[in-house]
Amino acid sequence: MSSELRFGDFSVSVFGESHGAGIGAVINGLPSGVELDMDKILDFMARRAPKKDGISTARSEKDMPEILSGFYQGRTTGTPLAAIIRNTDTRSQDYGNISTAARPGHADYTGFVRYKGANDPRGGGHFSGRLTAPLVFAGAVCGQILEQRGIYSCAHILSIDNVYDHRFVETEIDRELTEQIKKRELPLINERKAEEMKARVKTASEKLDSVGGMIECAVAGVPAGIGSPMFDGIENRISQAVFGIPAIKAIAFGRGFGFADLYGSEVNDTMYMDGDTVKTATNNNGGIYGGISSGMPIIFTVAVRPTPSIAQPQKTVDFIKNEDTELVIKGRHDACIVPRAVPVVEAAANIAVLSFLI
Amino acid sequence: MSSELRFGDFSVSVFGESHGAGIGAVINGLPSGVELDMDKILDFMARRAPKKDGISTARSEKDMPEILSGFYQGRTTGTPLAAIIRNTDTRSQDYGNISTAARPGHADYTGFVRYKGANDPRGGGHFSGRLTAPLVFAGAVCGQILEQRGIYSCAHILSIDNVYDHRFVETEIDRELTEQIKKRELPLINERKAEEMKARVKTASEKLDSVGGMIECAVAGVPAGIGSPMFDGIENRISQAVFGIPAIKAIAFGRGFGFADLYGSEVNDTMYMDGDTVKTATNNNGGIYGGISSGMPIIFTVAVRPTPSIAQPQKTVDFIKNEDTELVIKGRHDACIVPRAVPVVEAAANIAVLSFLI
Amino acid sequence: MSSELRFGDFSVSVFGESHGAGIGAVINGLPSGVELDMDKILDFMARRAPKKDGISTARSEKDMPEILSGFYQGRTTGTPLAAIIRNTDTRSQDYGNISTAARPGHADYTGFVRYKGANDPRGGGHFSGRLTAPLVFAGAVCGQILEQRGIYSCAHILSIDNVYDHRFVETEIDRELTEQIKKRELPLINERKAEEMKARVKTASEKLDSVGGMIECAVAGVPAGIGSPMFDGIENRISQAVFGIPAIKAIAFGRGFGFADLYGSEVNDTMYMDGDTVKTATNNNGGIYGGISSGMPIIFTVAVRPTPSIAQPQKTVDFIKNEDTELVIKGRHDACIVPRAVPVVEAAANIAVLSFLI
Amino acid sequence: MSSELRFGDFSVSVFGESHGAGIGAVINGLPSGVELDMDKILDFMARRAPKKDGISTARSEKDMPEILSGFYQGRTTGTPLAAIIRNTDTRSQDYGNISTAARPGHADYTGFVRYKGANDPRGGGHFSGRLTAPLVFAGAVCGQILEQRGIYSCAHILSIDNVYDHRFVETEIDRELTEQIKKRELPLINERKAEEMKARVKTASEKLDSVGGMIECAVAGVPAGIGSPMFDGIENRISQAVFGIPAIKAIAFGRGFGFADLYGSEVNDTMYMDGDTVKTATNNNGGIYGGISSGMPIIFTVAVRPTPSIAQPQKTVDFIKNEDTELVIKGRHDACIVPRAVPVVEAAANIAVLSFLI
Repeated sequence: MSSELRFGDFSVSVFGESHGAGIGAVINGLPSGVELDMDKILDFMARRAPKKDGISTARSEKDMPEILSGFYQGRTTGTPLAAIIRNTDTRSQDYGNISTAARPGHADYTGFVRYKGANDPRGGGHFSGRLTAPLVFAGAVCGQILEQRGIYSCAHILSIDNVYDHRFVETEIDRELTEQIKKRELPLINERKAEEMKARVKTASEKLDSVGGMIECAVAGVPAGIGSPMFDGIENRISQAVFGIPAIKAIAFGRGFGFADLYGSEVNDTMYMDGDTVKTATNNNGGIYGGISSGMPIIFTVAVRPTPSIAQPQKTVDFIKNEDTELVIKGRHDACIVPRAVPVVEAAANIAVLSFLI
Repeated sequence: MSSELRFGDFSVSVFGESHGAGIGAVINGLPSGVELDMDKILDFMARRAPKKDGISTARSEKDMPEILSGFYQGRTTGTPLAAIIRNTDTRSQDYGNISTAARPGHADYTGFVRYKGANDPRGGGHFSGRLTAPLVFAGAVCGQILEQRGIYSCAHILSIDNVYDHRFVETEIDRELTEQIKKRELPLINERKAEEMKARVKTASEKLDSVGGMIECAVAGVPAGIGSPMFDGIENRISQAVFGIPAIKAIAFGRGFGFADLYGSEVNDTMYMDGDTVKTATNNNGGIYGGISSGMPIIFTVAVRPTPSIAQPQKTVDFIKNEDTELVIKGRHDACIVPRAVPVVEAAANIAVLSFLI
Repeated sequence: MSSELRFGDFSVSVFGESHGAGIGAVINGLPSGVELDMDKILDFMARRAPKKDGISTARSEKDMPEILSGFYQGRTTGTPLAAIIRNTDTRSQDYGNISTAARPGHADYTGFVRYKGANDPRGGGHFSGRLTAPLVFAGAVCGQILEQRGIYSCAHILSIDNVYDHRFVETEIDRELTEQIKKRELPLINERKAEEMKARVKTASEKLDSVGGMIECAVAGVPAGIGSPMFDGIENRISQAVFGIPAIKAIAFGRGFGFADLYGSEVNDTMYMDGDTVKTATNNNGGIYGGISSGMPIIFTVAVRPTPSIAQPQKTVDFIKNEDTELVIKGRHDACIVPRAVPVVEAAANIAVLSFLI
Repeated sequence: MSSELRFGDFSVSVFGESHGAGIGAVINGLPSGVELDMDKILDFMARRAPKKDGISTARSEKDMPEILSGFYQGRTTGTPLAAIIRNTDTRSQDYGNISTAARPGHADYTGFVRYKGANDPRGGGHFSGRLTAPLVFAGAVCGQILEQRGIYSCAHILSIDNVYDHRFVETEIDRELTEQIKKRELPLINERKAEEMKARVKTASEKLDSVGGMIECAVAGVPAGIGSPMFDGIENRISQAVFGIPAIKAIAFGRGFGFADLYGSEVNDTMYMDGDTVKTATNNNGGIYGGISSGMPIIFTVAVRPTPSIAQPQKTVDFIKNEDTELVIKGRHDACIVPRAVPVVEAAANIAVLSFLI
């Protein structure tokens, strides 16, 4: 189902267009009676909002979700939890030339073909990164439920334009550190990389260009034995969720593509008993074997492509007139969306992991 | 659903254990009246069978599928197509010590926890790579239907232990070449790499070790406009299918992780008219924008981890006794499963792509 | 999925509580570019609204749906169509005693157990008949798409408290008649039964009691060959949808329970050629054989139980205190919900039938 | 999905054709480690097999299921449980004239249109009542798991051609009685009706005709609080399963169509405390309120249409030649399938109820 993540009896359905009346999410299958702290949800959503960090766009959406159902007296009811976010700061005149010339790297042309020209083209419509706001809302809800069960997750910028942060220690995620990362201006383990990353984005921006990067995400405290073999394992669900985020083009669990160049003896995670608990001395497999959690942290990395909207003139086609043309994209665009994508990736992971626990 | 790929009204359900009575697949939602050439299906399946290439295991399964239903007078009926494959050459005594000591890198421990000790441990049971045989059967069926619609796919070894094959030309897949690749002893674009790859595997094998690699897969001829935004796009479905293959730990579409280090101007695919057809001068995005096909080849790459079964002594735990132990794995195992995984990846892609067309 | 109808790639997800902020529906998988006449949708919804017919409750909801997404320039976009309806006229003080004493015939107790006491009890919460408003919205949308394909549907009151309307002519549904039925104060074929039905409801109401009835629904113009055998046929989908309506407790296709007492020779529908079209001389099977449409009208009948909310004192339990108690239900309630259920049943049929055509 | 019942993470997929190589079922999502008594499963299946009761056909299928996977050392593994049944006694020459003249009341014509003439027409193909054998297998497996949880089910003949059995006592199902019913030649509460029913069938058979009837089914011991409101409640799942049985054309829960003619005060089930347990003095609603179980027995009734295959000449169409024709059906057919449908209905109920508990 196109705009819905469905995992068994649990689902998150997202709707809306960038410049329509509103966007939102419906979550089905939540447990009943779970307390939710709305302030924490807003904090999570604020991590996705554009910031004055010199990287994000200047568009200032408040993105206040209004819960319409499924939440009563501070707790989930167990029936569908629906929330909407009104679209307010929408300067659609900026997007006047979108409907006839395809923006390279965007879904303008493919969306046009898919929907036979009837989709809402303004601001990318349903393809807009703005649709990640309700996804983050849902992920924030799921994250709170996970925390109540001793499970915590954290994503951070792993790289922007060849400037690299540290990786998590694969066998043990320092919870204190994850709390700090979420409060930092740029979500990094090694804060000292922030200035260099910002400089790279500034350079790209001055060249009317954009840069990509990588995000690493860890989910810790997951008990051993969740997930399933073959098509409904942890990798399957996380990747299905994560590829719902525009601009994500690759995902790697544990050592990922690094496996290709190593020997079995180098990557088989040696197992040992730590008291009554089975652990592994390394965590090359990202906490997942046969689609099922081992009890070690679940760790994966995704690639974020450079923002396709760049201010340079670009050759493209007018898909109505069926002719070549040149396009200059106006409007406000992030020269790098990696920082804002960090909580979205974390949200997607929360949804996927929680789905196995209810 | 654990062992079932479900895409809308189309599904492929796989069942079986490595050393049980048999394995099989049920395909629901196939179009009716499609002619299937059984010889071609067997040819496809033979590509997965162990070969005398010095890389694969010596286990000689015939893997003859018997179709029980859904196929009548040479054509699909439209009702469920079910096929079974009997297990024959099963030396379960080789696996005598599996049930108490977890093989590192395998799902022995996680499967034990997941199924509370009740799953069939012989030869990996339902987690076995043997379960890819019915997946390949289903992918071979789907591949024929795709071919009848002018769509063809091909996977090849991209690397084994740091020895690299060429990549496909991203903007145009030479059909003749794909036919040749499928007939080669090792599925490679550049045949001259075969000996070096074999040598690497031989070296690893002599060290009682194993090696991993990468597989690149292309699907050409896909019309523009299939797929959907967000959670049910081409990347979502292909990744959900591909992570159903044991040993796949990463997937990248188009330039994949390469996006992280490049500028937007470098990776935005310039669009142009080729007669009446919209094309892109490059294909960095692997033929997919917003989850939807552009008409250019769909291209992705996966990482295959080294076979976890290695003949060296390994430290591990006995998860019944809850104590540390050492394990020496007996039995026959591929020192490198990359070649045999190639048709499996292609099969998974066939299933995912066909699902959008019916 | 609890509050979602899912048929292949098509789904209708309903959310909301009777006395929460709002209710709504998300429709996924609609074809793109379909013109929708909002006035017609409101007309359809008005058929469900309480009327001054002496039968319905006095609660006056405007029930104006606001479309948030999926509708642009008068046409469906193909992406999720979401609509919300605000709750306004909610006198929750009327429901003060609900949370401790179970209303007999209602889901107060079962909902309490199911959701461990966390569900919203006000006005029935998510169990309220009010949730049929978004269902009717979705059914009105589907109905317009069906009409554009020459398919039309109509439900009518078949009986109220033993007063019977005529049945449809099973082999041919008079379209003109269906238009008239929808405009009548009570949706009846034989208008002259209206007064008698009203009198029966009035009598029951005066006795502080309520009455049930039956609804017959026909869908005409459905082409032969839609549906599937076994678990996803027309009967399966319609019944899954219809049992989503509170108060429906039985469904019968064609002759339904009448089949039990007849000979095969009496109910086998004789087939004949009407020009190039296969028809049946009778339509005992309600236009469905093996789950698949024959091209004849699809006809089914449902039973509507008497409104459980009656003003008489009733013996029941207090499920918090776990003790017997007596309850007098206050608030406004329909003494007969059959008339208002008519468009809801038609809406459910529209959704189920359209799901086979997209 | 056509031939698959899917309830959350639980599914039963059925495949096969009446005269193909074999039929079978794949059950996904069973709990692991559940002991299954194969003899009991065969006993259940034997209840469906044709008997020498003068009612069923003379076709003698052994219907021995072979379990291929998911069952190890007497227990479920938790991975897909697949079973096949070979078709043996197939006299397809009896069906020589089926493919061109539609049998009235059968799916010959609708199936032809649906599958564009490619479906297997022999013996009804995938539409055959024979496909209920794997459904019964699955229902027998589910029934054992239910029994281990204190839940037991029983269906019986409620009527054949106007001869009526007693109904169950709606508030309490006598377990001893249910065991006896399952062993009787005809599954009846009131054995003394057996001869009269047989006589009716014999009469119809002598007239080259067939008769229908009704089946009542009860599931007792179901805890309160399973099921969900709206589209995924107990009524929705049971009806979706039951309409997968050929010849079932109506279903009624509790008082069913009887609700239409009664007052609310007559059918509201008065609630009371029986010790710590909430009970109802009557069970008019069949143990279900708002889609959720009350803890009282779940009770429903279905209508079984008369066997459409009758030996009289019938007017019909040849759907290849598109002309009117006359047909005399040869082959062996039950003059009444009600007795054999009894365990099938019970099996469908078992599957639906168990789906809520795992």
